[in-house]
Amino acid sequence: MIKAYAAETQGGELKAFEYKAEALGNEQVEIKVDYCGVCHSDLSMLDNEWGMTQYPFVPGHEVVGIISEIGKNVKTLKVGQRVGLGWYAGSCMHCDLCMSGNHNLCLTAEATIIGRHGGFADKVIAKEEWVITLPEAIDPAKAGPLFCGGITVFNPFVQQNIKPTDRVGIIGIGGLGHMAIQFAKAWGCDVTAFSSSRDKEEETRKLGAHHFIDSRDTESMKKATNSLDMILCTANADLNWEAYISLLRPKGKLHFVGVAPSPVAAHAFSLIGLQKSIAGSPLGSPVTTKQMLEFSARHKIEPIVEFYKFAQINDAMERLKSGKARYRIVLEH
Amino acid sequence: MIKAYAAETQGGELKAFEYKAEALGNEQVEIKVDYCGVCHSDLSMLDNEWGMTQYPFVPGHEVVGIISEIGKNVKTLKVGQRVGLGWYAGSCMHCDLCMSGNHNLCLTAEATIIGRHGGFADKVIAKEEWVITLPEAIDPAKAGPLFCGGITVFNPFVQQNIKPTDRVGIIGIGGLGHMAIQFAKAWGCDVTAFSSSRDKEEETRKLGAHHFIDSRDTESMKKATNSLDMILCTANADLNWEAYISLLRPKGKLHFVGVAPSPVAAHAFSLIGLQKSIAGSPLGSPVTTKQMLEFSARHKIEPIVEFYKFAQINDAMERLKSGKARYRIVLEH
Repeated sequence: MIKAYAAETQGGELKAFEYKAEALGNEQVEIKVDYCGVCHSDLSMLDNEWGMTQYPFVPGHEVVGIISEIGKNVKTLKVGQRVGLGWYAGSCMHCDLCMSGNHNLCLTAEATIIGRHGGFADKVIAKEEWVITLPEAIDPAKAGPLFCGGITVFNPFVQQNIKPTDRVGIIGIGGLGHMAIQFAKAWGCDVTAFSSSRDKEEETRKLGAHHFIDSRDTESMKKATNSLDMILCTANADLNWEAYISLLRPKGKLHFVGVAPSPVAAHAFSLIGLQKSIAGSPLGSPVTTKQMLEFSARHKIEPIVEFYKFAQINDAMERLKSGKARYRIVLEH
Repeated sequence: MIKAYAAETQGGELKAFEYKAEALGNEQVEIKVDYCGVCHSDLSMLDNEWGMTQYPFVPGHEVVGIISEIGKNVKTLKVGQRVGLGWYAGSCMHCDLCMSGNHNLCLTAEATIIGRHGGFADKVIAKEEWVITLPEAIDPAKAGPLFCGGITVFNPFVQQNIKPTDRVGIIGIGGLGHMAIQFAKAWGCDVTAFSSSRDKEEETRKLGAHHFIDSRDTESMKKATNSLDMILCTANADLNWEAYISLLRPKGKLHFVGVAPSPVAAHAFSLIGLQKSIAGSPLGSPVTTKQMLEFSARHKIEPIVEFYKFAQINDAMERLKSGKARYRIVLEH
């Protein structure tokens, strides 16, 4: 039996819940969970915001633990290895996307908490390809959020071919943004943090931002016209997108990983004239995840986390909801 | 004196107009105009749609002619050469954009018909860098439209790094679209033409389209889900952009060269999930223009044009306004 925490109903409290593990698939591994990050998507799924939640629902997709069992066809992992698991727990491995290294875009990829049980548990199961070994230099207690939030903000640097000579802006200094600033700094870029909370300036500078712009200060915004190669939006808010597009250099990209509630709108002229673009991406492939971990180890990048015991799971969810967590929450046994 | 056709007032009739040519700049050349294409931007400028027209206004920015005089610092052009001139007649040559080959994105680039007189004339002046020699194999009578419409739809293939193995869709089968289809075919791509006019199917197939989709037929649209690497929008209309985005493959791009009147809107989720993007570009750099001409010569690509005499210039403008021209109009002396 797997001992987990589940909600029986939409938005319900998480309660102790046991379920019988299915027989381990030939390509799967079982992970004994040591830590699990709490992500905003866990909350969205708990509340069935995306209409795809099945109850009882076990959240948790920022897992760090030790491999406790492997399927008979598993080739690259061993029992006893320390690993992490993020949003995806499997891909088909044979479609053109998987076969070209884009497992994260596989149309039938299996999400860790959709139609199956996640990592708020003592054990969780996933396919070999999405179970990534953790470099020695990374603190396992803090590593969980790298497997969802971290890879989500790292992936755009790879996908958009960002160069160390580029200037990068980060919108939203929260769970995702505070990691994005660290990656941008270590990537070698000139880094601008955008926030409507001026009290975040000092912290963003500690994280590595070279510049801070109060997004409500139209003068400061104007001064930055045509200056940024990529603006990475980690905020889940409707902002003045035309204003941000005007801050892009020619060929600059406004890249979304946060989900604005309303459609993002821009006049075609704002894109055509100086060849600008609007893009988005989900979390990265397994290979990009490995690169992210290696890069994080080399540059001592880690999320800033608050710890909760698994038994305090509902307090942790409340803390997440409050928006006051600085910046990610990790559950520990 | 230069003999031209000018409008004295916003939207006014074009009348014979003479003006004294300024002394030729050291970096400029004078072109004796043989042909000049009529572009929708000439009409927009005539009507002062963009608030930047000065009257008397001489339109014309798809010029083909012979160099009749060169400035004393001109190094690469000679009197007697057959050349073309498009939307731009000069760039600063020293900013980072010019210095990196992106003269078309130079923030102080000089447009052929903004604040100066264009090619509806017997002579027109431009700086060396934007005056491009015409390959022998290209019919000068039909070449004018390549210098604005042609380069505008060719440039996205270069900028978006489109590969011959890609699938490309073209929205809008008109002055730009009918050239875009030819470029896409010659580029080696699988080509889908989108139009709401089913009577254009036969012609699009002649131009090289492998598939035709009636954009009002929701069944056909749905069948094409996740199938295209780039959709190039040449239409100046508000369309169902979410529907077109859903037709993009993972990592696909919806690329604008036509200007929708209303802002283009898409939900961030529609971009994030399969890493799609919305982009735009203006016409290409001088080097890309040369590549386009060489490519057109090699693949026998040319616009389909209707000819008018310069003396019939107002009839030509009326024909353009009617939207019935198949597909570009060229004025000849």
